[in-house]
Amino acid sequence: MKIVRYMADAGPELGWLEGQTVTPFPGVADVQALIAGGGQAQGPGVALDSLRLLAPIVPQRNVFCVGWNYLKHYDESKGKREGQEIDLPARPTFFSKLPTTVAGPRDNVPLHEAYTAKLDWEVELAVVIGKAGRDIAEADALGHVFGYTVANDLSARDLQRAHGAQWFKGKSLDATCPMGPVLVTADEIGDPQNLALACRVNGSVMQSGHTRHQIFSVARVIAELSEGLTLLPGDVILTGTPEGIGAARQPPVFLRDGDVVECEVEGIGALRNVVRAGLRYAE
Amino acid sequence: MKIVRYMADAGPELGWLEGQTVTPFPGVADVQALIAGGGQAQGPGVALDSLRLLAPIVPQRNVFCVGWNYLKHYDESKGKREGQEIDLPARPTFFSKLPTTVAGPRDNVPLHEAYTAKLDWEVELAVVIGKAGRDIAEADALGHVFGYTVANDLSARDLQRAHGAQWFKGKSLDATCPMGPVLVTADEIGDPQNLALACRVNGSVMQSGHTRHQIFSVARVIAELSEGLTLLPGDVILTGTPEGIGAARQPPVFLRDGDVVECEVEGIGALRNVVRAGLRYAE
Repeated sequence: MKIVRYMADAGPELGWLEGQTVTPFPGVADVQALIAGGGQAQGPGVALDSLRLLAPIVPQRNVFCVGWNYLKHYDESKGKREGQEIDLPARPTFFSKLPTTVAGPRDNVPLHEAYTAKLDWEVELAVVIGKAGRDIAEADALGHVFGYTVANDLSARDLQRAHGAQWFKGKSLDATCPMGPVLVTADEIGDPQNLALACRVNGSVMQSGHTRHQIFSVARVIAELSEGLTLLPGDVILTGTPEGIGAARQPPVFLRDGDVVECEVEGIGALRNVVRAGLRYAE
Repeated sequence: MKIVRYMADAGPELGWLEGQTVTPFPGVADVQALIAGGGQAQGPGVALDSLRLLAPIVPQRNVFCVGWNYLKHYDESKGKREGQEIDLPARPTFFSKLPTTVAGPRDNVPLHEAYTAKLDWEVELAVVIGKAGRDIAEADALGHVFGYTVANDLSARDLQRAHGAQWFKGKSLDATCPMGPVLVTADEIGDPQNLALACRVNGSVMQSGHTRHQIFSVARVIAELSEGLTLLPGDVILTGTPEGIGAARQPPVFLRDGDVVECEVEGIGALRNVVRAGLRYAE
């Protein structure tokens, strides 16, 4: 099933997308409610094009993220980390992004030119947890997944370096995590390690990868993250970005006012966000 | 005003502490509700000793944290960071802890011996935001503070290093952030840079510091954190720990089953938590 979230008259509402038609879940405002209580889609359907899409989910705590999860992405940045070099970690590199980073799949998003000169793109497969758990065995991990969506982990590279090499601030500027356009339930995706993903900027392909190249599989990431740490329904985990980020290019390329960034994952769909100077929040 | 949160028959409830008597705020379950809607304390009062105290606040997203905010603490760990040395940052080192780390001020907390051999203490002054804001000027920053409490930023040093030098996982094991015992409103604290703080383990003083030695003041931390990033009512910011952590001692000292950890900040009070092996959650 493909789930969308959109702005209805009374506020955010979920719908079930089939083809280009959205059938609402009346009174269900978020995926957490759908996971907790179920819901029944009821017609009449409305045209997808007529809706203002929101991110399909906003987690109730920070978005979990995995860094350096594709070997070529780790390699491309070698020597370009401004003195903060590190050996390829034997375990996943976990960090977080605030819920206030979440933006819609068609939103204009801020360039944040007052605070960063190095805003960069990162297409990622995002996992939505459906079932709570701790100390989850790798073999059981995919049973905890409700579904998948696409995320663009927009990253202020200068701020990633400036704050004691902890990435949190450079990853948490407002509206730097567009998500969507749909949440696809796990049954429909099947194997999360069999998905192509890509990022285009102004139509040029900047990233073109495949989840089979993840160093730590989705199941491994969930297992390791949950060691001593309770995962909750509605948690979102970004599973890393493939090679092709702007900071690693020769010369480096960063986002500019008016750039159109598209992030796509096979079987889910594509985000399309325009980056705007002078904008404070997503719109 | 001193605010406590405790387990009442119908669930968590806030109360106003005067001396040893707690006067309930009927129907007010959390500080976020108090900030949003106010509330009226109503007798009869009950004895503080008769209540099971909870953390005074659980934030609705990850706890914000500042690393290396006391120079002697930065210095004490030099050469002890297992190859992850870094110059003293010119800007605050921000990272986060999950809301599931929050534990009560008198709880037994897990040693997490299955996942870490290096659980360490960190007494910190915690700031609770009362008024939303972004791009907050340093001169206005304390006007956004609702109050203060004490936190113990329990840290798994081995996990801090293991995950690509990002501290998130090592800081986010369940129940590794005892908070309380009370939340003191900002008017009663006055200058947050004029508070002694200390940590004792089994009665021995391990940390003894003073917020006047913070590299980045509370106001500066709020101002810089809020650059391009919206702070919300109920956000909690831990403002760093002074020297005296276990990992920096010669030889290093880490927490063991049965250790009693007390963390105290002047004008607020003291946490007292016993660390227990074989325990999964705070109790």
